Formats: sequence, structure tokens, C-alpha cells
Amino acid sequence: MTEKDAVIIGAGSGGLSALRQIKNATDNYLMIDPGPLGTKCARVGCMPSKALIKAANDFHRRHKFQSEGISGAESLSIDPDSVMEYVRGMRDKFAGNMEKVTRKLAGDNLIEAKAKILAPDMVEAGGERIKTKSIVIATGASPLIPSPWREFGDRILTSETIFEQKHIPKKIAVIGLGVIGLELGQALSRIGTEVVGFDMKETLGGLTDESVKKRAIEAVGSDFPIHLGEAARLSSTKDCKITVCYGDHCDCYDAVLAAMGVSPNIEGLGLENLGVELNDRGLPNFNPKTAQISDLPVYIAGDVNGCRPILHEALDEGFIAGKNAAAGQDDCFCRRVPLRIVFSDPQIAAVGYMREELETTGREFVVGREDFSDQARAALEQNNKGLLHIYADNQTARFLGAEMAIPGAEHIAHQLAVAAQNQMTVFEMLQSPFYHPVLEEGLRSALRNAASKLKDKHTQPELLVCGSCPESPLC
Amino acid sequence: MTEKDAVIIGAGSGGLSALRQIKNATDNYLMIDPGPLGTKCARVGCMPSKALIKAANDFHRRHKFQSEGISGAESLSIDPDSVMEYVRGMRDKFAGNMEKVTRKLAGDNLIEAKAKILAPDMVEAGGERIKTKSIVIATGASPLIPSPWREFGDRILTSETIFEQKHIPKKIAVIGLGVIGLELGQALSRIGTEVVGFDMKETLGGLTDESVKKRAIEAVGSDFPIHLGEAARLSSTKDCKITVCYGDHCDCYDAVLAAMGVSPNIEGLGLENLGVELNDRGLPNFNPKTAQISDLPVYIAGDVNGCRPILHEALDEGFIAGKNAAAGQDDCFCRRVPLRIVFSDPQIAAVGYMREELETTGREFVVGREDFSDQARAALEQNNKGLLHIYADNQTARFLGAEMAIPGAEHIAHQLAVAAQNQMTVFEMLQSPFYHPVLEEGLRSALRNAASKLKDKHTQPELLVCGSCPESPLC
Repeated sequence: MTEKDAVIIGAGSGGLSALRQIKNATDNYLMIDPGPLGTKCARVGCMPSKALIKAANDFHRRHKFQSEGISGAESLSIDPDSVMEYVRGMRDKFAGNMEKVTRKLAGDNLIEAKAKILAPDMVEAGGERIKTKSIVIATGASPLIPSPWREFGDRILTSETIFEQKHIPKKIAVIGLGVIGLELGQALSRIGTEVVGFDMKETLGGLTDESVKKRAIEAVGSDFPIHLGEAARLSSTKDCKITVCYGDHCDCYDAVLAAMGVSPNIEGLGLENLGVELNDRGLPNFNPKTAQISDLPVYIAGDVNGCRPILHEALDEGFIAGKNAAAGQDDCFCRRVPLRIVFSDPQIAAVGYMREELETTGREFVVGREDFSDQARAALEQNNKGLLHIYADNQTARFLGAEMAIPGAEHIAHQLAVAAQNQMTVFEMLQSPFYHPVLEEGLRSALRNAASKLKDKHTQPELLVCGSCPESPLC
Repeated sequence: MTEKDAVIIGAGSGGLSALRQIKNATDNYLMIDPGPLGTKCARVGCMPSKALIKAANDFHRRHKFQSEGISGAESLSIDPDSVMEYVRGMRDKFAGNMEKVTRKLAGDNLIEAKAKILAPDMVEAGGERIKTKSIVIATGASPLIPSPWREFGDRILTSETIFEQKHIPKKIAVIGLGVIGLELGQALSRIGTEVVGFDMKETLGGLTDESVKKRAIEAVGSDFPIHLGEAARLSSTKDCKITVCYGDHCDCYDAVLAAMGVSPNIEGLGLENLGVELNDRGLPNFNPKTAQISDLPVYIAGDVNGCRPILHEALDEGFIAGKNAAAGQDDCFCRRVPLRIVFSDPQIAAVGYMREELETTGREFVVGREDFSDQARAALEQNNKGLLHIYADNQTARFLGAEMAIPGAEHIAHQLAVAAQNQMTVFEMLQSPFYHPVLEEGLRSALRNAASKLKDKHTQPELLVCGSCPESPLC
């Protein structure tokens, strides 16, 4: 039995990112995954959902056509099954490409089987035992389905099965309105499925800022009914495929889309053989800045660790895990500022600290506010709705975070992420140019609003005085 | 005759911005404008064009409907005259509001007449002579129409008259393909007008980067024919309202949209009475960082000065002019990094230094490239086209500028403007999070491409090592 330098368990986005780092150091590695290859993101996650959302929003826009001078919108129709066929075609391109990338990257070092950890330096796969200097665990996570719900069989859909449906059910209860439930629920509703949304929590898309949340609920609620704050209960009768009850009210559905979060793919993985304590989710403690589990040569990256279950974070964790696994080290890396986006309409996004986090820590901060129902560009495009809140430290004027439910949130959030990553103050942020008319001007308004509320009222002018000008052409 | 502290000539965006600063210092001022009030931007510029472009792009999107599972696109039709009616309605809201703002801001100090400068401390308006401690000139600019073209009368349209047309001509030659010609030409073509575009220069939307320009020409050229690099000649015959010749080829049109730039509104303004030298455009020299003309108590702001004829720059110049006019000073302010956006499809934008400027100054720079025909999010939305080039200093890795013709350029450009304003390096820019799948990932690819080409190949990892982490929550 030859000893490997590294074994990567899982060929998803996190595992592939680790693989890239490990390949820089050694060819003596194995990647183990039972398939299907192609990454969750490309197969059933970020990619197909965006194609679906675009089609849904294109169709939804017809409501504005008459006002814009476009006739015939009433003749438009959409066929949910055709949309899904389109989405699958799009998806197959991306997932097929990712599978090719995976096979090319891993080459002969790919074992298509399930892996089991036997010890911190020993893995079993395909009936073989592999001794290894390090292990990267990147098995991902899967949609959570409460075990009592399993009796409903294929009437329970998830993000992993919805895109495979040849016939989209006519009436769907979406249970869980985080990023996945909200994106899929709204899109399904816009392509003509009857959708009702439920979430035990009184929130939508993870928002914690009450005012922003309220506006998001209003806007999304105009697409499809949503019920928040109480658990949905499922049952089945002869007359109805699946009954969903909420409080005293029950209604009949063709299917339920379960979107209540994910559980880590650790069944049969043998984490118990690592010899470290496991928490109530069955996971070991790990350091998000080293990806290391305890002081073992074992690293954990991507959705499986439950820390930041978002693709770009999985890539970062894979990078850290791969670098450390290859070198047998525990080098410590900064994590990027948090950036979360829900591709709903209005889009929901959060950057840096959430409002709840700031309030919990008792930090003194001001809130800069911009109501997008008055935002010029949004109004020009008849898409004016939502609210942007940015948070700034009342002492230092530093930008701390933001929550928003606005059109174009994905773009505003990226600009804000640059500011957060570079620890900029609201005054520094206001020195940038803002074109006209753009959605970003709404961000400027929120920044100005925050600046006006800061303790130190001696606000700095947006234009710097000469002497410290950035080099740039003039006329 | 009482002496005023300040007289503002022109109640457009630049003048109103100056007014806000002057009102902070004194109530003893006058604002003079012959009307119509409401600002060029809101009446005939940025605002109506964006409403038109949105309607045009909504209609254009129908070509993708069938593929997305939406039926009936062939039943859609658009009526250019209805679109313009919609645009006027939208425009009236914004312009009406701006007129109200103007009247409220200026109050009784508004004189609705044409102003003439008699001396650096004397203005005439409405038959009255006004002595003043300072003058702000903010009269704006108007579309340039070569005098021989005046014989064609109302067959020559401009951005100031096109939105007023009750009947949009069936076939229009757009002459000049800078920001205005390109935006209006493409939108008119998409709402069903037959459009042919011409520009004497071999460029589009002001691009100077040959590769980006080429891709822009390809993309826009698929909407309507464009002829670059030779002057268009106009004539009129009995059989044809207006004939446009280009090289050996002539064709008949219903109207010409003249979009060859603007000329400053200085006729009868009395600039010759300032006692300073005027250049061949009839304008005095001025300092863009103080807005001051020579050492006179006279300041010039906005499109009239020809420096940076863009709304947000006019506001900055108004701020500088107003502050200095009120205080009788020449305080020097930094100008923001240049940011130019054309709302075409693909959008065209430039930030910081243009490529031509960098080449002219002999600066050593690398080009980071991203082809958006392969960009994931753009492909998911069937809008994958165009090219992004970013320029970085080969010694310092500092981001210097960018030119692009890509979907969502307006957003990418704002993120880049933050980087330019803060003199960030490409490595610092890569430390920010990029979500997936977003257009901004195309920017990241271009940044990585630039980083890989830098002289100092010791590239910094995107994740900082611990010790210098920005404060932010972890899991």
C-alpha cells in the first residue's frame, strides 16, 4: 500500500478548488467521489436557477409592455415544462463542462466511489484502503428533508429534483423561504405554477433588518402568497396528493418543494473515526481560517462544514484546505467579508455585518436609508421598489454592513463589498463618482443619509481638497 | 442699484448645484434663465433616453422568448409613436419635478430671462443691470448642427427635438455615434424605425481601445448598419426628403438625427466683456479644480465649459463654482476619476485613463482581458457578448483604467471607479468577494489576467494571511 500525499473526498466546487492547490505541490493524490460529477452548483444550484429566473422575469415583464407602447402581451404564454427543458439544456452545458474539467484536472487519480475515513491517515474507497498524509473533506450538503416527510415520496421535491421534472406540478407549496425557496418559489410562480410559500421564521431570504424585511415581504407577497412564523404540517388523504396545513388553515397541493436548508453529506463518511468530538450535527470543530479539524492533518471545505454555504466561500475554503493539506500545515488565511445574494425580485442582499449581528454585539451604529420606490433609474424602468439600509460605525464612520431588498442588489452589494473589504468610511465611499441615472445613486443617497446621522457632524465634503487628488486625466 | 453677492446664469444641473452652495452663504443672489426650466438632463437628456432604451430593450428581448419556453412573441408589436408618448409622460414627471425644485430653491431670486455679462461684476437681464460680487456661468450646451444643415429645417432632429415628435420618421440617419447617437440610434432601431448610423471617426461611444471597439462595432452593427470613418453628406431632392451620402453611396431618409456633439450656449452671453482671451470655441480658459476663469470672480460650471460634459461632473463643478463664488475664493478641489457610460447594448463604459491616454503618455501598463462571450452569467441570460479590458501599471500593479463593451457595464464601471478613486492595485481588488454567478466575475477574470501579466510575477494570493484581516463575522 503506497502512501498518498493527499486524499480529497468530494469532487464538488470545494474539492476541485483544493485539488488545484494540491496539484501545485504533488501528483501523488487521490480524488474520490461517487458521482454524479459536475458540481452541485452547475448541476442543481446556482446555474440552472439563474436560467429559470431569467425566463420567469422575462415573462413577468409583459405586465409593463402595454404602458411602454408594446402591444400583444396578452398573446404571450409560458409553458413551465418547456421552460424546464430550456433550463436543463442550459444546465447540461455547464454541468457537462464542469464534469470535463473535473476529469481533466483529476486525471487517473479520480476514484468514482464512496469514501470512508478509517483514521486521520486512512481512507477506504472502492474496496481499497488508502494511506495518506492528509485528507480534505469536501462532500457538500444536500437538501434537508425531515424524515417523517419521506413517506410522501416524489411529492416532496427539492432543488436537486425540481429541474428534472418533465411535468411541473400545477400547485406547489414551497416550505422554507431562504435563498433557494425564495428564488425557486418566485420563479415557479412567474412561469405559471400556483405557488404558496411558508417559513417557520418571520423572515425572507435571511434578512434580519425589520424594515428591509417588511419591504421584501410586501414585494414578494405580491407575486405569491407567503405565510411566515408558523410551521407547515403535511398530510395526505385520498382526495389530495399532499395537504399542507398552516395554523387552522389547510390546503391541497400537487407537491411540496422542501427548501428548509441543507444537511451535510456525512452519512457513512466515518467522521467518528477521526477521534475528535462531533457536535449535534455530527460535525467536528474546525478553524474556518485554516480549514483544519483540531490538530489533525484533516481539512474540511465547502458546504459540508456548514460555515458559509455559498459557492465563492467553498472555493476559498478549498484553496485554504488544499494549500494546507499539500504542505501539512495550518497556515491561517483571512476570510473575505460576507456577501450574500438572493436572486429574487427585488433582489435581496447582505454585505458585512447583518443588522442583527450589530445589535447583538451592542455596537453603536447609524443606519443610512434609501427608499427605492423613489429611486430615479428604478422608476424610469418601472421597477421602483424596495429598501436599502447601510450601517456605519458611529465613532469611526466606517462602513460595517448592509441589508437590502432592491432591484440590482447584486451589483450594489459588490460595490459595498469592496468598501467593506477595504474598511472604508462612508466619507471615502462618497468620494467615488456616481453616474446618472443609475441604481448606484440610491447607494449614494443611503451613504449621504448615514453621513448626516453620524455623531461627528463635521461631515467631509465629497470632493477632496487639492494635494491628495488621485492621479487621473482632467479635461 | 443694489449689489448682489452672486449671480448664477443658467438654472440647469450645474447652476442648481452652484445655487445650493451659494444659498448656504447668502440670500443675496440671483439666478437667471430664460427657460424652459427643469434641466436638460430631465427634459431631453439622461432621463427620457433611459425610459426609451428600457422599452426598446424589453421589446428586443422577444427574440429569446421562444427558446426560454415563452410563446407568442410573434404577436408582439411596437408603435414608435406610443413609445414616445410613454417616454414623454415619464419625462414630464421628472422634468416637472425638477422645475418645481428649481422654483422652490431659487424662490423670488429667479429671473426668467436671458442674461448678458457686461463686465466681470455686471450682468444685464430683463432690461436691468445687476452689479454682483461674483458670477457663475452655467448655461449648458446644445446639440451641434452645422450651419449648412439648417436649410433642412425640421428634417434635422436632435436629442432636444426627437422626444417631441408625435410621429417618429420611418427611416432615420443618425449622424454621430458618440453616447447620444448610439443610445438613441440603437433604441430607435429596436422600436422599429429603420436606422443607419454614421460617424466620421472610426469609433463608437468614445472607445479608444481597438479590440473593445471592434467588439462594440460588431455587436451594435447587428442591430443596425453603421458606417464609420468618412463624413456623411446631406442633400435634398424633389423625390427624397433628405439624402445622405457616404463615400460613393447615397440613400434616402425621412430625417437625420444630428448627434455630432454639442456647442456651448454662449451666444449673446457677453463673454467678450470679461476682458480675457477666448479660445476658438469662444470660451475663456478656466481651472477645472477651482471652476474659476483667470483670476476673475467669475466661475464656469457644467456642459458650457466643455471639460466633462456629464451630469455628475456638472454637479461637482457647480459645487466648486458655487462654493468659490459665495466665498470669493479659488479653493482647489480634486476631480473624481473619470467615469463614462453609454447605455447601449452591450453597454459601453470607460473608467479612469482611456487606453489612448495611457499609450500617448508612454506609460508601461498591462491589459487584463475578459471575453464576455464566454461569461457564465451572461451566457445563462443569453446575453453573452463583448469584451472588457482593464489597464494596470506594470511597476506598481495599480489599476489605471478600463474600457469595455459588455452587458452590465454600468455596474462593473462603478465597482472599478471605487478602485480607481482609492488607487487600488489589482491584487487589492482581487481580495473582494465575488458572488457566483454574476457579471462581476468577468471583472475578476480580467483582474486575474492582468495580475498574471505583471512584471513582478510574485503574485499575491487573493486571501490575505491572518494578522491583517478586515473585521467581519466568520461563520
